[in-house]
Amino acid sequence: MDSHRYAVIMAGGVGSRLWPYSREATPKQFLDLLGTGRSLLQMTYDRFTAVCPPENIFVVTSQQYGPGVAEQLPALSQDQILLEPHRRNTAPCIAFACYKIAAKDPEAKIVVTPSDHAIFKENAFYQVLEQAFTGAQDTQKLITIGIEPTRPETGYGYIQYDAGTEAPLKAVKTFTEKPQLEFAKKFLESGDFVWNAGIFVWHAQAIIQAFEKHLPDIAEAFQGAEERFFTAQENAFVAEAYSQCISISVDYGIMEKANNVYVVLGNFGWSDLGSWNSLYENRSKNEQGNVVQGNAIVLDSTDCIIMSQTEGLTVVQGLEGYLVANINGTVVVCKKANEKQYRDLVNLVKKEKGEGYM
Amino acid sequence: MDSHRYAVIMAGGVGSRLWPYSREATPKQFLDLLGTGRSLLQMTYDRFTAVCPPENIFVVTSQQYGPGVAEQLPALSQDQILLEPHRRNTAPCIAFACYKIAAKDPEAKIVVTPSDHAIFKENAFYQVLEQAFTGAQDTQKLITIGIEPTRPETGYGYIQYDAGTEAPLKAVKTFTEKPQLEFAKKFLESGDFVWNAGIFVWHAQAIIQAFEKHLPDIAEAFQGAEERFFTAQENAFVAEAYSQCISISVDYGIMEKANNVYVVLGNFGWSDLGSWNSLYENRSKNEQGNVVQGNAIVLDSTDCIIMSQTEGLTVVQGLEGYLVANINGTVVVCKKANEKQYRDLVNLVKKEKGEGYM
Repeated sequence: MDSHRYAVIMAGGVGSRLWPYSREATPKQFLDLLGTGRSLLQMTYDRFTAVCPPENIFVVTSQQYGPGVAEQLPALSQDQILLEPHRRNTAPCIAFACYKIAAKDPEAKIVVTPSDHAIFKENAFYQVLEQAFTGAQDTQKLITIGIEPTRPETGYGYIQYDAGTEAPLKAVKTFTEKPQLEFAKKFLESGDFVWNAGIFVWHAQAIIQAFEKHLPDIAEAFQGAEERFFTAQENAFVAEAYSQCISISVDYGIMEKANNVYVVLGNFGWSDLGSWNSLYENRSKNEQGNVVQGNAIVLDSTDCIIMSQTEGLTVVQGLEGYLVANINGTVVVCKKANEKQYRDLVNLVKKEKGEGYM
Repeated sequence: MDSHRYAVIMAGGVGSRLWPYSREATPKQFLDLLGTGRSLLQMTYDRFTAVCPPENIFVVTSQQYGPGVAEQLPALSQDQILLEPHRRNTAPCIAFACYKIAAKDPEAKIVVTPSDHAIFKENAFYQVLEQAFTGAQDTQKLITIGIEPTRPETGYGYIQYDAGTEAPLKAVKTFTEKPQLEFAKKFLESGDFVWNAGIFVWHAQAIIQAFEKHLPDIAEAFQGAEERFFTAQENAFVAEAYSQCISISVDYGIMEKANNVYVVLGNFGWSDLGSWNSLYENRSKNEQGNVVQGNAIVLDSTDCIIMSQTEGLTVVQGLEGYLVANINGTVVVCKKANEKQYRDLVNLVKKEKGEGYM
C-alpha cells in the first residue's frame, strides 16, 4: 500500500434532508441509514482502509461532532480528527486537512470525500480511485470523480468533460450546480456530462497551488502551516486561520475556476442518499416494495419507506408511496417527495415549531 | 335534590379499542378524549353531580386503577371508590355497588353508568334520567336507557320494546347484542329497536331481587352484605364474595332473562366513543375536516384524525381519511376503520409484539 496516499473524510454536515431521522445532534453520516449495522461514516472509513494506511485517514468535523466521530471510529488517533472552529463550507475544510497532511508529507496524494454517501460497488470504486491516484502523481492536476448519470436528476451538480479523450483522465469543461429539469435532460442526452460526486483526488502540492491561485486569502491564512501543525500551537493557529476564511465551497472557489481540472468517470453504485426518495431507491425492498427499518408492522401497504426506532413501534396500514418516520417522538407521514418538496416541508416545521425539533 | 338517588360509575374497563391512545395502564375513561380538559371519567362524574348528592356517587374500578380514580376525582372519599378484587364483567360489579348502597340506604334508587361514554346534550339526558328515576320508585321494575338509533350500527346492542305504550317506560321485548349488518338494518327500519347505552336505573330492592332470581350464586355471595359494608370487614367480605362470582354481564345474566325490564327512550347526543371512527364523528373538525389533538402540523390532508402527544411532534402531509396516532413512541397510521377492523389490527400487534405494547 502506497504510504503517500491519504484520505480526508468530511464529516461536518448538519443535513436536514432526512429529518427527523437525521437531526442536528445526529446528522446523517452518524446513522446506519442502509441498515447494515454500520453508520455511513463508518462505512466510508471502512472503504478507505483498503485505499491507504489507516494512520493516513483523516476526518474533518465540527467541535460538536468530534466526540461522535471518536466514538464511531475508535481506531482514529486524536491527531486524525480535525475539529473545525467554525463551519465555513468545503474550501476551508479542505485547506485545513490538505495543509496539515502536506506538513507531514509533502509528497501526499489525497482523496477528499464526503462521509455520508453510499457506494454499492466497492471494487469498481477502487478501480476508479486507482486511476485518479495515478493521475494525481502529477502536481499540476486537480482530479474529480464523475458518476455516469442514469436520470435527469436536478439535485446534483453536473460536470461536462472533453469526450474526445481516450485516457481515463478527461479534461473538464464546465461545472453546473443543480440544473433545472430541462437542462438536466439535455445534459443526460448529450453524453458528455457526469454527476459531481464531490470526491476529489490531488497531490498535496496541486491543491496548495490551487488555493494560492484561486483562493489566496485562504492560502494566506494557512501560510506557515507546516511549522504549526502537529505542535501545541495547532489549535490556536487553526482558530486564527479560520477567522480569516470566507465560507465558500471548493467547487465554486476552485474547481469551477481552475483550468487544470480532470474527471475520471465511474459507475460504482453511488448515491448521495440526499433525500428520502434516494434512500428508498437505494435500499433493498421487501415483496411489497417497502423499505422497513426498526420496529414496525406494515399491512396492506406498498412502495413505502418506514423508519422506526427500535424502542418505539410503528404500525402502518393502507399506505401507498409514503414516508413514515418515527424518531424520538417526532413523526412524519408524507408522500415520498423530491428533495425540494421535502426541504419545504422541513422549513415549514422549523418556522412553525422552531429549531428545537431540528 | 332527592337524597335517595345514587349513581354508580363503572370505571374498570381496559379498552384497547383506541390503542395506542388508550392503553392498559391508562384506559379510555382516564383520557381527555374530547379535548375538553376533563377526562371521560371526570365528565361522567361532573354530569351526575347534577343528579344526586355528591356523597351518593360511587365509582367501581379495579385495584390497579384505584389511585387513578382518586387522583382524577379528589372529591371522592375512600368509601366512594369501590375496588374490585378481580375483573368479573358487569354483574358482580353492579352487585358489589348496589348491595353496598342498599346497606346504607334500602330506599336507594340507583343509576348505573359506564364511565367512558360521551353525552353531548346534557339537559335531554337529565330529562330522560328523571323519567327513569320516577319509574324506579317501583321496586318491581328494572329500567334501561335506550338510544334512538340513527344508523345500522353493528357495534352496539339493540333493545326491542313494546311500541304500543304511550308512557315513558316501555316494556322491553328482546335484547340483541352486536347484530350483523342485515339485522341492524332491519332493526333500524322496524322503528321499535333502540341502542342499549348500558345505563340502568333501578330501586336497590329491584336489582337485589333480580340477582336473587336470575343470578342466585351472586346474590348468595353478597348475602349478609348489609352488616359487612362500611365496616372493617368489608374488604375481606368482598374478596370472599368475588371468589364465588362467575364472570358475567348484567345484560346477559339479568336483563335478557327478566320479564320486568323497561326502557326509557332518549336522544341526548350519546356515543360510546368505542372506535377511532366514532371519536372522529364526535369531535369538532377544522376546515379540512380533520380532528387534530396535540402537537401536530397537518398539510394537504382531509378527513383525518390526528392524535399527537404534546411532547412529540406529528407532521402529516397528503392523507385522506386516516388515523395518525403518535403516543409514547407508539405510532399507528391506518385508514379510519370500523371497530372490528381496528380490533383485528390491535390483536395482530398484540400477537406479533406482545402485551408490552398494550
